[in-house]
Amino acid sequence: MKRIQLANYRATHFGYSVQGKVATITLNRPERKNPLTFDSYGELRDLFREMVYATDIKSVVFTGSGGNFCSGGDVHEIIGPLVQMDMPELLEFTRMTGDLVKAMRACPQTIVSAIDGVCTGAGAMIACASDMRVATARSKLAFLFVRVGLAGADMGACTLLPRLIGLSRAADLLYTGRVVGGEEAERFGFHNRLVEPDALLETATALARELADGPTFGHAMTKTMLWQEWNSGLGECIEAEAQAQAICMQTRDFERAYRAFAAKQKPVFEGN
Amino acid sequence: MKRIQLANYRATHFGYSVQGKVATITLNRPERKNPLTFDSYGELRDLFREMVYATDIKSVVFTGSGGNFCSGGDVHEIIGPLVQMDMPELLEFTRMTGDLVKAMRACPQTIVSAIDGVCTGAGAMIACASDMRVATARSKLAFLFVRVGLAGADMGACTLLPRLIGLSRAADLLYTGRVVGGEEAERFGFHNRLVEPDALLETATALARELADGPTFGHAMTKTMLWQEWNSGLGECIEAEAQAQAICMQTRDFERAYRAFAAKQKPVFEGN
Amino acid sequence: MKRIQLANYRATHFGYSVQGKVATITLNRPERKNPLTFDSYGELRDLFREMVYATDIKSVVFTGSGGNFCSGGDVHEIIGPLVQMDMPELLEFTRMTGDLVKAMRACPQTIVSAIDGVCTGAGAMIACASDMRVATARSKLAFLFVRVGLAGADMGACTLLPRLIGLSRAADLLYTGRVVGGEEAERFGFHNRLVEPDALLETATALARELADGPTFGHAMTKTMLWQEWNSGLGECIEAEAQAQAICMQTRDFERAYRAFAAKQKPVFEGN
Repeated sequence: MKRIQLANYRATHFGYSVQGKVATITLNRPERKNPLTFDSYGELRDLFREMVYATDIKSVVFTGSGGNFCSGGDVHEIIGPLVQMDMPELLEFTRMTGDLVKAMRACPQTIVSAIDGVCTGAGAMIACASDMRVATARSKLAFLFVRVGLAGADMGACTLLPRLIGLSRAADLLYTGRVVGGEEAERFGFHNRLVEPDALLETATALARELADGPTFGHAMTKTMLWQEWNSGLGECIEAEAQAQAICMQTRDFERAYRAFAAKQKPVFEGN
Repeated sequence: MKRIQLANYRATHFGYSVQGKVATITLNRPERKNPLTFDSYGELRDLFREMVYATDIKSVVFTGSGGNFCSGGDVHEIIGPLVQMDMPELLEFTRMTGDLVKAMRACPQTIVSAIDGVCTGAGAMIACASDMRVATARSKLAFLFVRVGLAGADMGACTLLPRLIGLSRAADLLYTGRVVGGEEAERFGFHNRLVEPDALLETATALARELADGPTFGHAMTKTMLWQEWNSGLGECIEAEAQAQAICMQTRDFERAYRAFAAKQKPVFEGN
Repeated sequence: MKRIQLANYRATHFGYSVQGKVATITLNRPERKNPLTFDSYGELRDLFREMVYATDIKSVVFTGSGGNFCSGGDVHEIIGPLVQMDMPELLEFTRMTGDLVKAMRACPQTIVSAIDGVCTGAGAMIACASDMRVATARSKLAFLFVRVGLAGADMGACTLLPRLIGLSRAADLLYTGRVVGGEEAERFGFHNRLVEPDALLETATALARELADGPTFGHAMTKTMLWQEWNSGLGECIEAEAQAQAICMQTRDFERAYRAFAAKQKPVFEGN
């Protein structure tokens, strides 16, 4: 079975660092508000695909540098070339961006986005594809696809956003492309925590560390089931969870938790 | 291919007017709070079905006259006759009302409901079947089916309402039939905007005009995908959007947006 | 056809009483905050399965004694033994707990949870499996599975909770197991009503009585359709409701409502 370590991975098109079991990905072209390019899309997709085999990384923080999260696909480096492409090339591109979302949902690590400033277009979709979102009041969320003449159907937006915040609010954001501030996005249920800009990375990292120190085999099962169950009937979902949880009950983490409880101690989970 | 113009359509059972690319439908029996009848149901269904072929109308405002939206099926003109019907006739009726919702979801135009006063029963379902909802604080939303001895399962309510506002709140409204004021409905995520009664039609029309002036080919794709994706898995949805957005990237509106951006101008979309 | 009466049912592992058409189930081990045991799980499952055939009970209040709702599976009586079990035994257990949720969703009675104090683990899932939730501000909701080293996928949590309150907030609660107070849970759309502790049981019982006095044949259809429609397409859902509502239009309750309206009286429903 393929098993790798990613603590020493060297990223080319974004910042990447590891502390303990938590990897931090930082989009780092702050002068352009951290846009995505063909290269960074591809490397992100490949990295999240490799995460499946990583034994050392248990959670991921996704953030941007210089007070912004991500401005989405770069106008000059992505939208310009797209305008020239034929259909096979366009489909190659839209499948690559969709593959990033698929890879973020398929890896076992929980992903916490730390969102300040601009979080738009494909950047907003990276936030959607994360497991939890920590943000600032001054953050600006917008699904800008409509502004460049496109549909809101991009990278899974028409399925992810309605499931996250309900269809009425999702339709508003996807049809209008309007900018939503941090407080409104928290009220909509999109952001899970609002913090001051100074505390953003620290809070998101502490949350990621707490998840990494938890029963990560169980977390990965939760992540799988949260999405897999969307298009099954209630009966099938309950049976699927009966099987999933029975598997988790054979982990040592379950026994560790019980032993710790009996001994009035805090359990130390190891993810197996 | 069938192509028609609906700017000069003459409605028999409701008000209908067109300004530019925006059609406004006004239920206009204010003395009865704008109830629906067999005739108005049928004409609305037929009109929305024709909208699919209309080249001139790009968005629709749905509203009511005299300070109310719609009181639902008329007690005397609909409920009375229904009590006398046999099963084939009843099914003919419930399929007709359901076909109105299907037609509203199947046409490419975005539909903005402008909701003041009473918005109940089938009226509430017309609001659910719209793409966005602008309302007043004094509006009154109620799914009254239970009050006349029926199920909350009417015109798709048990699927539309939970998707719009979540299953817990939807169950409350469908089981109890209780009246929800504008502020609570906005808090639930049902209404997208709350405005003063004086500004209601103007705000809804401005929103509809903004949508009509946008990339309407993209909007229609968003509308299709928002509903089509509900019962597919995440992977299938992402692939479906990769194809949908690649199609939109071949529209001239996409190129227009890019050219406008490069020239530091506002794009002028044409819906192709 | 099997038809039974449950007014005189004698419960062994929890409190059970009937007033009129409303049954009240009370978890009653207050010194341990009303945990579930193998025995109480099994008896609850069996009772809700029998409810399908009961002609006298039209709604159910689910509550706990001594200021708490339910602390979930007992650590000593459930988690200890589970740690020793092999896979067939574990699956027997997880299927039993899932069967309780299935039975609560499959019976025609509407179920109102009255939630004070601790509402955690399997207790939180009983709240999820109810039709409506009345709670106090001091109530404490937590999906604690993660705390004992397990997945959030338990008794259908990964499908029920996202559908009730949206996927973003559900993921937060399932990954972190954090405690949510009554006001936050109401804001999330989980609790339908917040009341003072003194008024809790009275309010929940009044709501259950109101539902029991309503068109219970219609309520049962609403309950069925609210869940059955989740994994069908919009068109199929609308057709399913056309059939469901046509069936309800042949009940006498529908005619009773119309006659009462015409006579300017309050309808008296009988559930047929």
